[in-house]
Amino acid sequence: MAGTSEQPPKQPPKQPPKQPPKQPMNVLWIMADQLRWDYLSCYGHPSLKTPNIDRLAERGVRFDRAYVQSPICGPSRMSFYTGRYVRSHGSTWNGFPLRVGEPTLGDHLRRLGVRPVLVGKTHMVPDTAGMEWLGIDPGSPIGTTIAQCGFEPYERDDGLHPDGPYDPDPPYDAYLRGQGLDGANPWEAWANSAEGDDGELLSGWLLANSDRPARVPDEHSETPYLTRRCIDFIDQAEKQSSAGPWLCHLSYIKPHWPYIVPAPYHDMYGPGDIKPAVRGNAERASDHPVYRAFQDHRVCRAFARDEVRERVIPAYMGLIKQIDDQLGILFAHLEAKGLMERTMIVFSSDHGDYLGDHWLGEKDLFHEPSVRIPFIVADPRPSADATRGTASDALVEGIDLAPTILDYYGGDTLPHVVEGRSLAPLLAGERDAPWRRYAISEYDYATRKTRMALGIDQADARLIMVCDARWKLVHAEGFRPMLFDLESDPDELDDLGADPDHEAERTRLLEAIFTWARRHHTRITLMPDEIEAMSGREPPGILIGFWDEAEARAAGVWPVAPE
Amino acid sequence: MAGTSEQPPKQPPKQPPKQPPKQPMNVLWIMADQLRWDYLSCYGHPSLKTPNIDRLAERGVRFDRAYVQSPICGPSRMSFYTGRYVRSHGSTWNGFPLRVGEPTLGDHLRRLGVRPVLVGKTHMVPDTAGMEWLGIDPGSPIGTTIAQCGFEPYERDDGLHPDGPYDPDPPYDAYLRGQGLDGANPWEAWANSAEGDDGELLSGWLLANSDRPARVPDEHSETPYLTRRCIDFIDQAEKQSSAGPWLCHLSYIKPHWPYIVPAPYHDMYGPGDIKPAVRGNAERASDHPVYRAFQDHRVCRAFARDEVRERVIPAYMGLIKQIDDQLGILFAHLEAKGLMERTMIVFSSDHGDYLGDHWLGEKDLFHEPSVRIPFIVADPRPSADATRGTASDALVEGIDLAPTILDYYGGDTLPHVVEGRSLAPLLAGERDAPWRRYAISEYDYATRKTRMALGIDQADARLIMVCDARWKLVHAEGFRPMLFDLESDPDELDDLGADPDHEAERTRLLEAIFTWARRHHTRITLMPDEIEAMSGREPPGILIGFWDEAEARAAGVWPVAPE
Repeated sequence: MAGTSEQPPKQPPKQPPKQPPKQPMNVLWIMADQLRWDYLSCYGHPSLKTPNIDRLAERGVRFDRAYVQSPICGPSRMSFYTGRYVRSHGSTWNGFPLRVGEPTLGDHLRRLGVRPVLVGKTHMVPDTAGMEWLGIDPGSPIGTTIAQCGFEPYERDDGLHPDGPYDPDPPYDAYLRGQGLDGANPWEAWANSAEGDDGELLSGWLLANSDRPARVPDEHSETPYLTRRCIDFIDQAEKQSSAGPWLCHLSYIKPHWPYIVPAPYHDMYGPGDIKPAVRGNAERASDHPVYRAFQDHRVCRAFARDEVRERVIPAYMGLIKQIDDQLGILFAHLEAKGLMERTMIVFSSDHGDYLGDHWLGEKDLFHEPSVRIPFIVADPRPSADATRGTASDALVEGIDLAPTILDYYGGDTLPHVVEGRSLAPLLAGERDAPWRRYAISEYDYATRKTRMALGIDQADARLIMVCDARWKLVHAEGFRPMLFDLESDPDELDDLGADPDHEAERTRLLEAIFTWARRHHTRITLMPDEIEAMSGREPPGILIGFWDEAEARAAGVWPVAPE
Repeated sequence: MAGTSEQPPKQPPKQPPKQPPKQPMNVLWIMADQLRWDYLSCYGHPSLKTPNIDRLAERGVRFDRAYVQSPICGPSRMSFYTGRYVRSHGSTWNGFPLRVGEPTLGDHLRRLGVRPVLVGKTHMVPDTAGMEWLGIDPGSPIGTTIAQCGFEPYERDDGLHPDGPYDPDPPYDAYLRGQGLDGANPWEAWANSAEGDDGELLSGWLLANSDRPARVPDEHSETPYLTRRCIDFIDQAEKQSSAGPWLCHLSYIKPHWPYIVPAPYHDMYGPGDIKPAVRGNAERASDHPVYRAFQDHRVCRAFARDEVRERVIPAYMGLIKQIDDQLGILFAHLEAKGLMERTMIVFSSDHGDYLGDHWLGEKDLFHEPSVRIPFIVADPRPSADATRGTASDALVEGIDLAPTILDYYGGDTLPHVVEGRSLAPLLAGERDAPWRRYAISEYDYATRKTRMALGIDQADARLIMVCDARWKLVHAEGFRPMLFDLESDPDELDDLGADPDHEAERTRLLEAIFTWARRHHTRITLMPDEIEAMSGREPPGILIGFWDEAEARAAGVWPVAPE
């Protein structure tokens, strides 16, 4: 046959068609500070409309029972940032340093090649004594990472910058000065002050001034400023074509007090727009010593007054509205840059604000306005398509976010360290996935006036909340527990903690706390597979319980040979 | 009057009489490895005479209810060396690294100007991954301290040096070689081998060989060697006239297995000298899954045989007798050097050894032969004169030693970190001093065959013992508890864990574990006085809950002024 002896013409080896390199997946984790779960329209607020956050919820899952591990900034955030319960990381109150050597989400992400970046607040206080003891220079890269709770601080701003040593002279002050908004303390003079009728400064620290506009123009106020800083970071990161994936924690310092907001947000809402206080006379007359003592805190007595609620809550709503407007700008930017398809967006808070509900202000106990948060996860991957726009009533904890993010980046969820659970099964709509039956939150009131009023030891000033699908119990060291039936009493007005008819529920929920308290939580130096590899055998050369050579030979360990 | 105008003759200013500088107070902390509480004559052993340890008891207090925090070397020692419960330090099993950043007694002592020196065993495994993460060079002074559990290792020897990677080539091997006792592995060939009738080597790993003398001559065997190393250290330290106080932890590696001892100790005791096994048929037939599974371990089946007990226990007794003889030499040296008057001497163990009692070997559960230790504290100061030669039945824990030592050196007992209690009130004979009502011990059997036999998760392989003045309860995750009445059943032969008549005792003791489990144990970065200073007030410049200037002025916080 003709040509049979001919070699086939040489062809170049097959090459895959040229494709652009796969672009990295990112995470944008937005946190609002002291935002109640129910002050967004997607969570049912009747008069406050938050269309941008609502649209995020339509793209992801809205978690309807998300609880923080402490209703206080510092410990709640340390739980978010470590994926660990407060009793595990040990930073039980604002300003209690996170011990050096406590592993953070940022540490885990760095090992996965992800850049964990902070824009805004963490409330982290470094363990400088621990660093000194271990010879770690706070100015070194490792020292900075420890001091910033694992994050790379693109911009750190914890939000409160009064005169004095608290958190002086942030970059934001320099920014204000650059805009001509100067003074000895630009934050106090512009962001935290209004003007009186005679041009005098009115302090944002004072609740009576909450209906006045802050002196700072909207565009230079904190929420737009941090939003722009976030956009700056994203644009810079995306410009570096070789850059790997990032996580940006945009951590707004609002709607946390001081309750003051610039125009036009200061009078967008009025007393007619606020929800009535959720509180009952039986609560006022409660015999629970801890609850009574907290009611007596100054801020709680203030928020028990209607004039305070009517002056403050509209400003609180304005601050939230401003965040929603800014998120509209941020989301539009992500869309314009083509980042929406490869960025998981999380919206959360660190805890709520009583705002006068239950005769309380601030966030010292575990009613829903305090311990429950808005929590939305919009995962762009097809695996989450089935759940877009849905709500989940699974019991979610703040510590679940860290393993969810590790999971998203393809990492191990590190169950020997990280105590939360990846939300991936819930995002994928796996309805039969096993899930926790109890959520836990803790509160250390050692530094609070309540502890001093009750005259108890620092070590005993502890509360632990446990809740399940229906019941919520608060264990109070040295006192009777509090108990609420969220089904028959969703407003938590009827404390059944001393009701003889509910002994069985209390016993069951206390047993759940006991089970939780017994679990490992400091055994963090070995992974489960390392422990498995040690199981059922002794190290090479070690023989235990053998009578003679024959026994050892029969067991295959004789003669002893080095490995 | 004559001479009235004269000045009095000038005298030199008064000076105190010249005294030698006050000599520092020291601590000698002797630990035997795997020594049962009842194998000393001062604790009532009928045939084993330990006159030197008995004399120490006459000079101090003999604690008759001292419990270790885990009946296993590693976790028990980490509790001794940190003053913290196992659930706090997290090193729950042998070879589980102690996390970097876990504060040790050695760290605290160094801050007090005390030199904490090790001669012998710690069972410490460093957290090399943690050190790498924090940028700590393991070869640096800080790295060494971390790797050696806070001690300065004058001589580290963990006792087991088989062929293979376990703990190869210790200084002791070089010492043996220097004595002409050489070979590829001098420890195996001399310290851990006997000779057969035909000159063949008989391994100390095999229980049948326990009645033979180890090939190593007594003077070159491990206990005399470590004793001399301790004397070397003391002599060197005392030669330095400017030296400050020291703590020397003389941590013998015996009478831990391999059960083999050189002449003349190998046949000092025979089967006629051993105590009968404490065990009952009801135990053999126990329905408790954890107890049954441990009974089935090889070493437990071995020690259930009388021939094993009769061959092994005399060697175990010989090893103890050798320690007592060596302590006679050591104490005579201290006396000759005048150190007895300024050295607190502590004698302890890290846990016991079942030796066939309760059908068990080793130390996997919480019967007295396993979890209870001999514990003697001889404090030379006059404050302890009232209690010399007495016994105390206070519930003492291994973690009490660290704060006792801190207290002795005049340091704070650091209750935010150290969970034990200083024994000072007991040493002073303060009979009304408040004391703990419950002792706690823990056991993580994740790596044991029992866990695999029961088919349970690593996280659930947990036991917690609690005992009070009369009762001992063992909580077993996923199983019923065990319960013993030490008053009516001091031998712990009758497990009342399922007895309906003892529900109240079980409930009370489980509640004690629950109370313990709720306590703070990771809140270690702030001292109580620092927390007190934060209590009842906000940081400067922070105003919460004030309506107007008048309110703030009335509270003394207006105008806001920087501190």
